[in-house]
Amino acid sequence: MVEVWRGPLAESLHAGHAVICDGNGEIVEAWGDPEAVILPRSSAKMIQALPLVASGAADAFSLSTERLALSCASHEGAPVHNAAVREWLADIGRSESDLICGPQPSRDKALKLGMIRDHEEPGRVLNNCSGKHTGFLTLTRHLGAGADYCDPDHPVQRACRSAFEEVTGLESPGFGIDGCSAPNFATTMSGMARAMAFYATAGQRGDLLSRSAVRLVEAMIAHPLLVAGEGRACTLLMQAANEPVAIKTGAEGYFIAILPERGLGISLKIADGATRASECAMAAILVRLGVLEAEHPDVKHFLNPEIRNWDGRVTGSVRPAPGVF
Amino acid sequence: MVEVWRGPLAESLHAGHAVICDGNGEIVEAWGDPEAVILPRSSAKMIQALPLVASGAADAFSLSTERLALSCASHEGAPVHNAAVREWLADIGRSESDLICGPQPSRDKALKLGMIRDHEEPGRVLNNCSGKHTGFLTLTRHLGAGADYCDPDHPVQRACRSAFEEVTGLESPGFGIDGCSAPNFATTMSGMARAMAFYATAGQRGDLLSRSAVRLVEAMIAHPLLVAGEGRACTLLMQAANEPVAIKTGAEGYFIAILPERGLGISLKIADGATRASECAMAAILVRLGVLEAEHPDVKHFLNPEIRNWDGRVTGSVRPAPGVF
Repeated sequence: MVEVWRGPLAESLHAGHAVICDGNGEIVEAWGDPEAVILPRSSAKMIQALPLVASGAADAFSLSTERLALSCASHEGAPVHNAAVREWLADIGRSESDLICGPQPSRDKALKLGMIRDHEEPGRVLNNCSGKHTGFLTLTRHLGAGADYCDPDHPVQRACRSAFEEVTGLESPGFGIDGCSAPNFATTMSGMARAMAFYATAGQRGDLLSRSAVRLVEAMIAHPLLVAGEGRACTLLMQAANEPVAIKTGAEGYFIAILPERGLGISLKIADGATRASECAMAAILVRLGVLEAEHPDVKHFLNPEIRNWDGRVTGSVRPAPGVF
Repeated sequence: MVEVWRGPLAESLHAGHAVICDGNGEIVEAWGDPEAVILPRSSAKMIQALPLVASGAADAFSLSTERLALSCASHEGAPVHNAAVREWLADIGRSESDLICGPQPSRDKALKLGMIRDHEEPGRVLNNCSGKHTGFLTLTRHLGAGADYCDPDHPVQRACRSAFEEVTGLESPGFGIDGCSAPNFATTMSGMARAMAFYATAGQRGDLLSRSAVRLVEAMIAHPLLVAGEGRACTLLMQAANEPVAIKTGAEGYFIAILPERGLGISLKIADGATRASECAMAAILVRLGVLEAEHPDVKHFLNPEIRNWDGRVTGSVRPAPGVF
């Protein structure tokens, strides 16, 4: 799917799977193996946030669209994200120590360097998943459930699994433990594309799960900066799009897109787990569909990024493999 | 070649090429495509250092075995490496500003954090290739050549290309510009394995190039810490080996090994460029050959590393694909 060039050579190559599904769960287009079993990692966050909305917890705690966007975010731990998560925790009577996700250094350069200079240790609020976890805590409080909300048998995770199986249309064959210690349920490439098409077409249906899905997609589209951060692929590609779309990365080369105006959902997995390739391939698919313009500088930055060396010299580039997309 | 597991799933997969050659340039064993054209990146440093020795420059400047090891190193910019490069530069009447490699932050954690706290900018001496470049500068001085020693037409680079083609046994089809701005010549997987077998069997021959190769291999084996650094794969695997071997990583998933006692050379390229996979696959090949013990903790650390999340919890592992090695 993706080539990494240096001088006269495609020095490294990335293969992968991708599926585009419509609202009937039919595969519109596919690359690689649509039945490959995968872990969607953080690309599943809008599914993990579904019980928060569908349960009534979001409304019981009057969650703003900003907080709904954060519940679906892999944010970079910039001051804007950290402050919003801290306020949300305070509003539900919880604190940083209630978060089960581990501590992660900020990916905001100024904050990261400032914390090193001040000998400040990274906290859990800075974890890219802290919004998702604050959503889990909100649902936990709403349900009056125990503190161990990442246990696969906890009511929150049982609700997540049920929502996941509902929108993917498949029983999950199992789960891995994610970077933030939450269970991450497995499905197939087509199952994940079907789930994203469920979100893309949710506005056409009136059931509770669909109405909840619409609110999450709209929140992501309304707040692209909260979903990721400055300079991040999800944020910049959502902002650059010709139409409202939700785009979400996941670890190990996962990526999804939700296209409400077309009723299409997209799942993408780079087999070797490389983010440089998943960003390039997702941009290529969205350019092919006309959702993104190849010449837009923020699109070009992910579709065809330059590789620079320590001296700042351009030594190569990443590009979609010819004839694939 | 390599699987990355999380819970019940091989979440990501890495494919690659590997070749083992003997001193006659014959392929003893191969995986993938032995004729794949590659850039060996920093795995070619002992070839880029060959003209330094063969020209007489190393002896003219009385280079120690430590300096010969540094000329083949991708060091981590720890104080031990930086001090040694600075002394070498002073001894040849050159300074940091004569190095063409760009500045790189130290990979030594304490030094890196200390420099951030002191608002110190990374310098060129800290670049992982600064030993190679100081070798280039030494040869440049010896030849009375111009300052632009990374120009492909500079006498130093013409000598590197000539040495490269001699030991690989092939005309190079071209070059890319490396992370340190030096040309990196292309060859095939078998060409690179043949070159490493040339080094492994150099002690059996008396010609100038072979005698120079022996000195570089012996320097690498004598100073594994200078070749990479504390906790690094090259250093730890050389130290853990049952016999004297030189092991050297390169960017984008490249790796080589030189086995003098067996007269064998090994080249390895992970197709997607992932270091986690090249370290695992090189360890697997050396375990299979009996050069490394799978149960040695420093070997296990690269052969079968645990993946831990932000909370320190083990969430998966990297392992050689079954039945491959």
